[in-house]
Amino acid sequence: MSASDDARSFSRENSSHFLEELFEMLRIPSLSGDPAHASDVRKMADWLADHMISLGLEKVQVMETAGHPVVYGEWMGAGPHRPTVLVYGHYDVVPASLEDGWDTNPFEPVVKDGIIYARGATDDKGQLFIHVKALESYLQTTGSAPVNIKYLIEGEEEVSSPNLLPFIQENLDLLQADVCVISDSSMATIEEPAVTHSLRGMTYLEVEVRGPREDLHSGFYGGAVKNPGNALAEIIASMYNADGTIAVEGFYDDVVELSAEEREMVARTDMSDRQLLDATGTPEPWGDERFTIKERVSARPSLDVNGIWGGYSGPGPKTIIPSSAGAKISSRLVANQDPEKIFELIKAHIERVAPPSVTVDVRLLTVGRPALIPFDLPEMQAAARAYEKGWGHEPVFTRGGGSIPVVADITDLMKIPVVMMGYGLDTDGLHSPNEHYRIEMFERGIETAIVYLEELAGIER
Amino acid sequence: MSASDDARSFSRENSSHFLEELFEMLRIPSLSGDPAHASDVRKMADWLADHMISLGLEKVQVMETAGHPVVYGEWMGAGPHRPTVLVYGHYDVVPASLEDGWDTNPFEPVVKDGIIYARGATDDKGQLFIHVKALESYLQTTGSAPVNIKYLIEGEEEVSSPNLLPFIQENLDLLQADVCVISDSSMATIEEPAVTHSLRGMTYLEVEVRGPREDLHSGFYGGAVKNPGNALAEIIASMYNADGTIAVEGFYDDVVELSAEEREMVARTDMSDRQLLDATGTPEPWGDERFTIKERVSARPSLDVNGIWGGYSGPGPKTIIPSSAGAKISSRLVANQDPEKIFELIKAHIERVAPPSVTVDVRLLTVGRPALIPFDLPEMQAAARAYEKGWGHEPVFTRGGGSIPVVADITDLMKIPVVMMGYGLDTDGLHSPNEHYRIEMFERGIETAIVYLEELAGIER
Repeated sequence: MSASDDARSFSRENSSHFLEELFEMLRIPSLSGDPAHASDVRKMADWLADHMISLGLEKVQVMETAGHPVVYGEWMGAGPHRPTVLVYGHYDVVPASLEDGWDTNPFEPVVKDGIIYARGATDDKGQLFIHVKALESYLQTTGSAPVNIKYLIEGEEEVSSPNLLPFIQENLDLLQADVCVISDSSMATIEEPAVTHSLRGMTYLEVEVRGPREDLHSGFYGGAVKNPGNALAEIIASMYNADGTIAVEGFYDDVVELSAEEREMVARTDMSDRQLLDATGTPEPWGDERFTIKERVSARPSLDVNGIWGGYSGPGPKTIIPSSAGAKISSRLVANQDPEKIFELIKAHIERVAPPSVTVDVRLLTVGRPALIPFDLPEMQAAARAYEKGWGHEPVFTRGGGSIPVVADITDLMKIPVVMMGYGLDTDGLHSPNEHYRIEMFERGIETAIVYLEELAGIER
Repeated sequence: MSASDDARSFSRENSSHFLEELFEMLRIPSLSGDPAHASDVRKMADWLADHMISLGLEKVQVMETAGHPVVYGEWMGAGPHRPTVLVYGHYDVVPASLEDGWDTNPFEPVVKDGIIYARGATDDKGQLFIHVKALESYLQTTGSAPVNIKYLIEGEEEVSSPNLLPFIQENLDLLQADVCVISDSSMATIEEPAVTHSLRGMTYLEVEVRGPREDLHSGFYGGAVKNPGNALAEIIASMYNADGTIAVEGFYDDVVELSAEEREMVARTDMSDRQLLDATGTPEPWGDERFTIKERVSARPSLDVNGIWGGYSGPGPKTIIPSSAGAKISSRLVANQDPEKIFELIKAHIERVAPPSVTVDVRLLTVGRPALIPFDLPEMQAAARAYEKGWGHEPVFTRGGGSIPVVADITDLMKIPVVMMGYGLDTDGLHSPNEHYRIEMFERGIETAIVYLEELAGIER
């Protein structure tokens, strides 16, 4: 039996203990986007640091940033001749409440039919914990792991990591590694594991349209005062063409077009209309029909209203012209779009189309750069072998539609490959009510992570 | 000294006592549109009935409807040879809270520089109470009034009086009168009293756009699933043409165009661009430039977003495609537009422009018919004399932009003229934060109402 076999056995035997620990994490509502939860975010960071210390990691620290802290810890016992892997994860979550449609308290994990229901179960507490348990499984059996490991667990991923780039810049020596592995992505079914080699970036902004200084009686002024609600609708409507392409001038200028070969690879993981309808409940597919569904959601940019508000939304009628209306709007970007440049283009578009009878305020909330990583690197191929041996299925290399800004930050600053080994399912409902995570995925993830450490040790350098 | 002189003296001497009574009314948050305030609405009705009984009125009753009750009371002591005036008013109010921008509690009246600040101060508790105090001033001095008076005070005006039409139909004998007087309108300055002879009607609807069955992660599906927030914006944007005219097919078909003479009369009370900007704080006037500002807000229809919502509006970014988005939309109508027909036209428009990738639900909330009453009737001319003698200024006849559905109901069902004698100011901020009412307006209103009863008695029949 190899060292990894012992570690895998240990992880299987200790599964229910590992789950109990995971539930402790899930009970902490570490909402990074809501100042009211700042102390919960801190509590979560402290919990993780305490946990790392209890496993025997070194240099464990809750490191301050301008926002929420980063948790760092390392195990360097494999020695300087062995490679070092940097594990990135995030301990923060997006908002969740019963009123949003959860069947149970989102911060009190419930297991039903082998599935854990809780905010953060799959994104990303469950997935980041896999890497901690993989190391623990080695240390508790052979007393050593095949490679050195550093953990960088941040608390601001869900608000687009505004302080991570400076953190990495200031801690390049501490973080130095040969490869970075991230588990914060997903696969279509448990039999189709995926290594993500591309991610979309993001420009997230807020627009506020202001008209009269206070709400007006619509009978007295309706017809002579521009309604900010109508004006906002007109601004948003102007952002799309009828064919599903984005109407903002210059928006597509830097988009890297898909080659014929790439389209062929993307087609291997395409989604049928039926699959899209079943997964989302949308009445019909929609979008730029020159591209397949999978291409639209991973290799093409998008623009979405994430929230819209203004005026009266309580029961019954209220006959006002609201004084203002606003929206959160975000655009998913692909290589080589620059998020700051896209913000300027959208801002210019909004200011151009807004009528002079209202004023508009366009504010940038967050940005994230898109990433595209070659999948023929040895660290990528090691990941494929780890899935085969640890998970039981050969993975596909796929493009992700979401954004993990750290991927571009790490490839750019640390000059190391980032390997995204997703241990979630596309249907886990992350960012939605009733987010969940299959216990089987959690267990197979730990075994795959154990094997990956061994495969990394075997790469010729 | 005539009877009206005695009554006017009494009203002046008892002003502070009358105000104390009005404040009791203003302290009751009788929000007709919010089910949570149903018991306050009932409390308000009971207060009014008790007050009428205390003044010696007869047949005082809190009369049930399918919604909030109507308060009825009468004084028929002038005898069958004298005319009977039906006073209509409403004791309900629109919502108000400190968060909306009120400087003080909207349901605890505060007097500052001779001005009462409270929700309902001008709309319509203050104005309806004027007519009660006018009768009391006669009864407490001469023991009799020059005409018979019936009071019909409803509790659902702010939700467009859904149960008033059947109430009037069922109580035609009880309500029988020669003229109806309503004080629920306003004048530009205290020196320019106005008798309103035209009102806009209303069609108020709610539209809900639904897409995916729950909120989706915008990274996973952005680009392939139609966003209900974007779709709603596109639907609303499609309702207006660039020139400020409404783009709903057939919308203007039944609009009675203004004659040259009417335009001349409307011009007497027109509003300059500067006045509109000062009154509202809007950055620029807006609308159909073929018409003056006053024409746009009183003799032309309008269409406004009263509220819009969908997705996430809390702090920070949240990267979702919302499962639904909705809006409250209302259209102010002019003679001879039919509110039900307009609803069908707007509904057909929305269903036509909505993309098949979302579903839409268009619901009618309330309707109100527009009204247009000749101003050469003797009861109208009596109102003009009452303002001259009681208020101190000759009134203008004007068109109102708001909607008082009961006006059309009474003219149609009871075949009597409705005289709208406004005792408010255009700038009283009704339906807005810091609604207020000048005590001087309240006092002059009572004196004018006292004189009007005498003038009505003198009309040859």
